[in-house]
Amino acid sequence: MKLSELFVGQSASLKKRFTSEELVQFSEISLDKNPIHLDEEYASKSPFGKRIVYGYLTASLFSGLIGSKLPGNGSIYLGQSLNFKKPVYLGEEVTATVTITKIRDDKPIITLETICVNNKGEVLIDGNAVVKLIE
Amino acid sequence: MKLSELFVGQSASLKKRFTSEELVQFSEISLDKNPIHLDEEYASKSPFGKRIVYGYLTASLFSGLIGSKLPGNGSIYLGQSLNFKKPVYLGEEVTATVTITKIRDDKPIITLETICVNNKGEVLIDGNAVVKLIE
Repeated sequence: MKLSELFVGQSASLKKRFTSEELVQFSEISLDKNPIHLDEEYASKSPFGKRIVYGYLTASLFSGLIGSKLPGNGSIYLGQSLNFKKPVYLGEEVTATVTITKIRDDKPIITLETICVNNKGEVLIDGNAVVKLIE
Repeated sequence: MKLSELFVGQSASLKKRFTSEELVQFSEISLDKNPIHLDEEYASKSPFGKRIVYGYLTASLFSGLIGSKLPGNGSIYLGQSLNFKKPVYLGEEVTATVTITKIRDDKPIITLETICVNNKGEVLIDGNAVVKLIE
């Protein structure tokens, strides 16, 4: 989208369930072999009781929304804050939403609230993204 | 590692070059189809002049270091801040480093500085991670 098409309050969402295969792929890319994500038996003995999704992997949906939808092409990430509030379980459906909270007057730089919730409406991840738009 | 083995100033690093195949894999997982990462022709006309690596993908090396090395197994991510200072080009070697900056007295929670540099020593990404250790 062009800068002129953006407004405060504008948002975009997507839903996704992460698969075991995606956890394995992400473990290979990131070199993160933490068994809480990969080993069912280890995870069953942890406080979570079952495998959880990499926080970064869930948060990458914000990158997806920003890079592909809002603002989409031309987006360059400048910063991101992430608070991991609750675990995301393997196979659980999550909804990621980004909402524009600020558009600078002087530069093509926008701030978006980034939030991920489960089907009970519980916040799993929140934070903010700062994005520059090149046109 | 156990909490008792950790100390302020302790660090872990890794080096990596991201491949075109990994950009495609990450685009599928994150649903981020921004052509600045995927389309050589589009990228050649951008201010960067060539394809750049997803900021999240580079930053996922911090997840790798934390989940696999420092503190390793038992690490649960509570938060992460990321500042994307310079682009990471496809094929460029980067070095990610995490360094413990704080260990809480009351809870098994540590803060780490997270930094990624290129071969010229230029900072590409910096920020902080907050991690809980379950034992």
